[in-house]
Amino acid sequence: MPRFVPFLLVAWVMGALAPLASGQDVRARDLGIPFEGVPGPLNAITDVPGVEVGHATIIEGDGPLVKGEGPVRTGVTALLPRGRAFDPVFAATYALNGNGEMTGVHWIEESGYLETPITITNTFSVGVVRDAVIAWMDSTGLNADPEGGLWYTYPLVAETYDVLNDILGQHVTRAHAFEALDAAAGGPVAEGNVGGGTGMIAHQFKGGIGTASRLTGSGHTLGVLVQANYGGRARFTVAGVPVGREIPDLMPNYDVLARGSIIVVVATDAPLLPPQLQRLAERVPLAIGRLGGLGSNGSGDIFVAFSTGNPGAWAARPTATLDVLPNDEMDGLFEATVEATEEAILNAMVAAETMTGRDSLTAHALPHDRL
Amino acid sequence: MPRFVPFLLVAWVMGALAPLASGQDVRARDLGIPFEGVPGPLNAITDVPGVEVGHATIIEGDGPLVKGEGPVRTGVTALLPRGRAFDPVFAATYALNGNGEMTGVHWIEESGYLETPITITNTFSVGVVRDAVIAWMDSTGLNADPEGGLWYTYPLVAETYDVLNDILGQHVTRAHAFEALDAAAGGPVAEGNVGGGTGMIAHQFKGGIGTASRLTGSGHTLGVLVQANYGGRARFTVAGVPVGREIPDLMPNYDVLARGSIIVVVATDAPLLPPQLQRLAERVPLAIGRLGGLGSNGSGDIFVAFSTGNPGAWAARPTATLDVLPNDEMDGLFEATVEATEEAILNAMVAAETMTGRDSLTAHALPHDRL
Amino acid sequence: MPRFVPFLLVAWVMGALAPLASGQDVRARDLGIPFEGVPGPLNAITDVPGVEVGHATIIEGDGPLVKGEGPVRTGVTALLPRGRAFDPVFAATYALNGNGEMTGVHWIEESGYLETPITITNTFSVGVVRDAVIAWMDSTGLNADPEGGLWYTYPLVAETYDVLNDILGQHVTRAHAFEALDAAAGGPVAEGNVGGGTGMIAHQFKGGIGTASRLTGSGHTLGVLVQANYGGRARFTVAGVPVGREIPDLMPNYDVLARGSIIVVVATDAPLLPPQLQRLAERVPLAIGRLGGLGSNGSGDIFVAFSTGNPGAWAARPTATLDVLPNDEMDGLFEATVEATEEAILNAMVAAETMTGRDSLTAHALPHDRL
Amino acid sequence: MPRFVPFLLVAWVMGALAPLASGQDVRARDLGIPFEGVPGPLNAITDVPGVEVGHATIIEGDGPLVKGEGPVRTGVTALLPRGRAFDPVFAATYALNGNGEMTGVHWIEESGYLETPITITNTFSVGVVRDAVIAWMDSTGLNADPEGGLWYTYPLVAETYDVLNDILGQHVTRAHAFEALDAAAGGPVAEGNVGGGTGMIAHQFKGGIGTASRLTGSGHTLGVLVQANYGGRARFTVAGVPVGREIPDLMPNYDVLARGSIIVVVATDAPLLPPQLQRLAERVPLAIGRLGGLGSNGSGDIFVAFSTGNPGAWAARPTATLDVLPNDEMDGLFEATVEATEEAILNAMVAAETMTGRDSLTAHALPHDRL
Repeated sequence: MPRFVPFLLVAWVMGALAPLASGQDVRARDLGIPFEGVPGPLNAITDVPGVEVGHATIIEGDGPLVKGEGPVRTGVTALLPRGRAFDPVFAATYALNGNGEMTGVHWIEESGYLETPITITNTFSVGVVRDAVIAWMDSTGLNADPEGGLWYTYPLVAETYDVLNDILGQHVTRAHAFEALDAAAGGPVAEGNVGGGTGMIAHQFKGGIGTASRLTGSGHTLGVLVQANYGGRARFTVAGVPVGREIPDLMPNYDVLARGSIIVVVATDAPLLPPQLQRLAERVPLAIGRLGGLGSNGSGDIFVAFSTGNPGAWAARPTATLDVLPNDEMDGLFEATVEATEEAILNAMVAAETMTGRDSLTAHALPHDRL
Repeated sequence: MPRFVPFLLVAWVMGALAPLASGQDVRARDLGIPFEGVPGPLNAITDVPGVEVGHATIIEGDGPLVKGEGPVRTGVTALLPRGRAFDPVFAATYALNGNGEMTGVHWIEESGYLETPITITNTFSVGVVRDAVIAWMDSTGLNADPEGGLWYTYPLVAETYDVLNDILGQHVTRAHAFEALDAAAGGPVAEGNVGGGTGMIAHQFKGGIGTASRLTGSGHTLGVLVQANYGGRARFTVAGVPVGREIPDLMPNYDVLARGSIIVVVATDAPLLPPQLQRLAERVPLAIGRLGGLGSNGSGDIFVAFSTGNPGAWAARPTATLDVLPNDEMDGLFEATVEATEEAILNAMVAAETMTGRDSLTAHALPHDRL
Repeated sequence: MPRFVPFLLVAWVMGALAPLASGQDVRARDLGIPFEGVPGPLNAITDVPGVEVGHATIIEGDGPLVKGEGPVRTGVTALLPRGRAFDPVFAATYALNGNGEMTGVHWIEESGYLETPITITNTFSVGVVRDAVIAWMDSTGLNADPEGGLWYTYPLVAETYDVLNDILGQHVTRAHAFEALDAAAGGPVAEGNVGGGTGMIAHQFKGGIGTASRLTGSGHTLGVLVQANYGGRARFTVAGVPVGREIPDLMPNYDVLARGSIIVVVATDAPLLPPQLQRLAERVPLAIGRLGGLGSNGSGDIFVAFSTGNPGAWAARPTATLDVLPNDEMDGLFEATVEATEEAILNAMVAAETMTGRDSLTAHALPHDRL
Repeated sequence: MPRFVPFLLVAWVMGALAPLASGQDVRARDLGIPFEGVPGPLNAITDVPGVEVGHATIIEGDGPLVKGEGPVRTGVTALLPRGRAFDPVFAATYALNGNGEMTGVHWIEESGYLETPITITNTFSVGVVRDAVIAWMDSTGLNADPEGGLWYTYPLVAETYDVLNDILGQHVTRAHAFEALDAAAGGPVAEGNVGGGTGMIAHQFKGGIGTASRLTGSGHTLGVLVQANYGGRARFTVAGVPVGREIPDLMPNYDVLARGSIIVVVATDAPLLPPQLQRLAERVPLAIGRLGGLGSNGSGDIFVAFSTGNPGAWAARPTATLDVLPNDEMDGLFEATVEATEEAILNAMVAAETMTGRDSLTAHALPHDRL
């Protein structure tokens, strides 16, 4: 008999149990942190029309680590760029520090298109999620072979390393990946200890999933979703205040946690080409720098940006007609990327609650009152 | 009861049953094809000391495709750059055409090191093999955490698409990956319809795994292993002869097979730095061009090069002492890369035997006598 | 009094004196070399509507090298992607081997646009030509500041090293650059010992400027212009025939000439995005491989591809409307790139005549009869 | 008769006239700005042994712009990585935003080595400086042809756009480049309105050349030199304080100055390989983000990092023996890069004095008292 029954929280349950990206829960700006720019209605990546997000959260067991048995503190977060439609989006990626994995990037770089959902999980479960995405796409009619017989694609799966989790136990299953994908929806996005972010740590506080958005002067929306698991405490800075030095306590009881990683997804409805999306991805480090991140050696800081502009472009024949923003109208999107990334990371930390994982390792929540 | 019992050929069985990279079996140069350069003793990537190769071949069932049931024509090929030692090698990658997957490249690009085995399988089984490699490394003592507690790495897994196979059935299991990894050994390398190459097609003949090597004037050895699944017939050229036009028959009974992909692994004991290995990887297209390849849109042509020089560099503290070949001594290695890649592809095609897969789809062997 | 009066051949004179890309002069296909594909009317890059090419050729003096005095065997070749219009084209670049210079690539990579003419000269005169292009653009009304006051751009200038020339003498002047730019015109393109190709050597025969074109099945035209100064004799292969081994004589009387470089410009009217143009640039090595090139360590093999599709896109506001070819319609363009590059290189070699330069160094013409 | 006699300030004169990187002049930390980390003795890039810096400053005329006549506010800054020795250093580059030029990068990327001085000037004078560097290297014995006859290299020249200057007049001459190169020396580095930074503007205050350094825990020194000409006022932040919003006055009397560029040179004596130096270059945006930079569309933000470790590696035969720092010892260098870049930019702004250029355009000095 299995000692751990996976405790699957489907997304509508998450909606009831977990901090939301809107509504009654406290978010970073509710604590008085000054942010630049104008957020969208949800201040979430789902402000970009068509973007859907779902989580599968796996929390099981306590106590000492027994590899393969637990404790389990992990999950899967899934993002559908255009909901259930098979309609690839232009995309590009950038790695500030490549101590991590993001699969599927070769075809994005070659073709300019992202053809699959984006999923984020832990370092040692990338594979199971990757193959599951193919099966899920096939089973849900996203197996779009325009020529009638052959279909192939390369799922984008990213990861960070959940120290709180029995990560070598590889507890994520195909069912968890399906759960997160099936749960993907518009509207508020659960933040903190959910989905792929369940067991993550940021600036040596509890980290996880966060999101934010900005409206640009050009009439577009840009949203960001992060899985934050990076950064040391000493350099942690919020709006110019050296919070890390002012809160030297509440450290995790484990000494190598300054390592870690951050995955950042940038979405916009501004009609951009792949080289322009690469520009957005390369602006993410500006936000990380502001918070005191270094792109440390042990960190996998990998970013993907996509545009929901130009629906139907992928399938259009004999040619596609595209609408494209000029390069010299992009500064507002650069600002939005920096601002939304900074706020999304802080939202992750504000939403995350103190968690104790394997071997009684504890990551403390960022204390709202002291912030 | 399962209808298909996986028929696992462990490598020592393969050694008896399959075409070898040495000995009694016919290879491309045995057919009188003129090749430049001097091959190593085995004319195989295993001529590079320390390199080990193993295959798991999965051939099951016949007849119409029933997704999830078969027929199955696939497998896994594993390559250990330095055998069972955890001693990462300098490496670099290049994609001529990125319609494919090679995981693990971010950390290679960032750090310069390849820390894991190289595995090659089919497009829809990359994930299962990827997570299996982590478990295999952990279980075999290659979980090398120099700091005592945290270990992570990003397996390099590549793929091509086996049209002959029930690829959406995702028949490759963790056990197959372990089998290929456990089977890895020096010595002759099985070629043709083995391992990841089992169900592959090249220049619209039967393709698969091939290997070759060269000795350079500088006293080094360079070896190549390919999983060849690319190319159309019309442009296929061997040593300047338009073989493709002269053998217009023996076409597969399926009309989209000019697509496909090729994975190329280049290994050398020449002591090279990562930027120098990138130079080798970028020479692979010169060989593909000679054979009539185009890097077609549907092709995932992704290459990795590594050096077994400088053992111990990864773990050396406080600094590593490296031995490095000057850039202006690299032309011999460029020649060796082109020559060995060309021969390895032809070896794959010469070794591969006619195979009938799902839906009675048949890929014919390159006829030795007409070549 | 200067001992060397630069002997400037303006383009209409070149038209009378030099081998043309059409008409009475012998080109590679006139010698019976079999080429794949269908060339355009001129079999030149100027078959792509709007593309204009001009040369300034500088041939002065004989005898021993006196640095700063001569002998001079050099020049400048200029290519205007859309003639005199300031209407930037989408572009991308790739370096097979970066032992060379191509200025202006950062903004191409960032913006996707090439905003300037393409000029090609010798290694030590890139700078003078670069600054001259700015002055020429300013003086000819291509200083297009849409905001009325600030204008800046980054000219694309490439080079190869003319061993026959007093290259350290830096004999190219701003006037030569203007001359080549002013001479740019549609129609036949002079080949061989002209413009930037004047003093160049290819496969240890005389090299220089060459061009070719192809019509694609999709109704588009693709043209190539090369400045060929690369490659050893031994591996030189023409249409599968090892010409290099069959003509071991007629070697230059200088022993390090297997080094060198090749600049390749690919132009097409197919409406392509920058990532697609990068795909074309990365297909150039397939042609170089077919001719026996290696991308040798000493070679600067750098390629640029641009599309004349989507005129007006750069200046369109608030957004540009683009017409874009799907990725899976690109194989014909890949074929055209390989075929036209191969023929352009051979056209350069067939057109080039034996030349003696500094220190009586002689590069022999490829003998038409023995080919 | 020329109306403007270039007023050449040789470096030893600059030492007397201009703000120095040590000694009596005020630098950013003298104003009480808190900086992290421990600077070297000079707090300058010349703290890295062997690094030499020189400037040529050109200030001529006043009043309305007459193209070709002035006013002139420009110059050249030269940096010799290992002084007068021809002993190439490992190097790598990164562009946050490629709206700029840095020549010579292809061979750095291909070979891993920087073989030339680094020079920085204005956008329209890159060429003259580039060709001058070749002549200077040739004339000073840095024409190092190990094979006796052929020598070629590709100077690294970078630029920013000096709005205060008659930039289209192209006033920089070969003599200015020689002057800066000849002036290169160790010791204090003049900052502010000197060399290539003479006419530059940063965060809409007067910008220019700045430098700083850090000592790392690993016993190494890392230095940074910037030519700062980038950024808007509104987002300008110093040590978390929104200085830009608090000093909204003192704006330049020209409305497009939020554009601009920044060139950053990172030098260290830590023995690093090219991929490791690329990591340093990619950390520079973290500092720019902290100051409020965006990598705006109009900005050419291009960075080069080099290591003076491993002297003699380039020329060593048959192989080079290298000493290399492990990747997991690099975090201290990442910190140093961020800290020294931030301080170097502020040093440039603190040292720069109010300047009026063409058309009475004035850029005001950052007011020390209000900072």
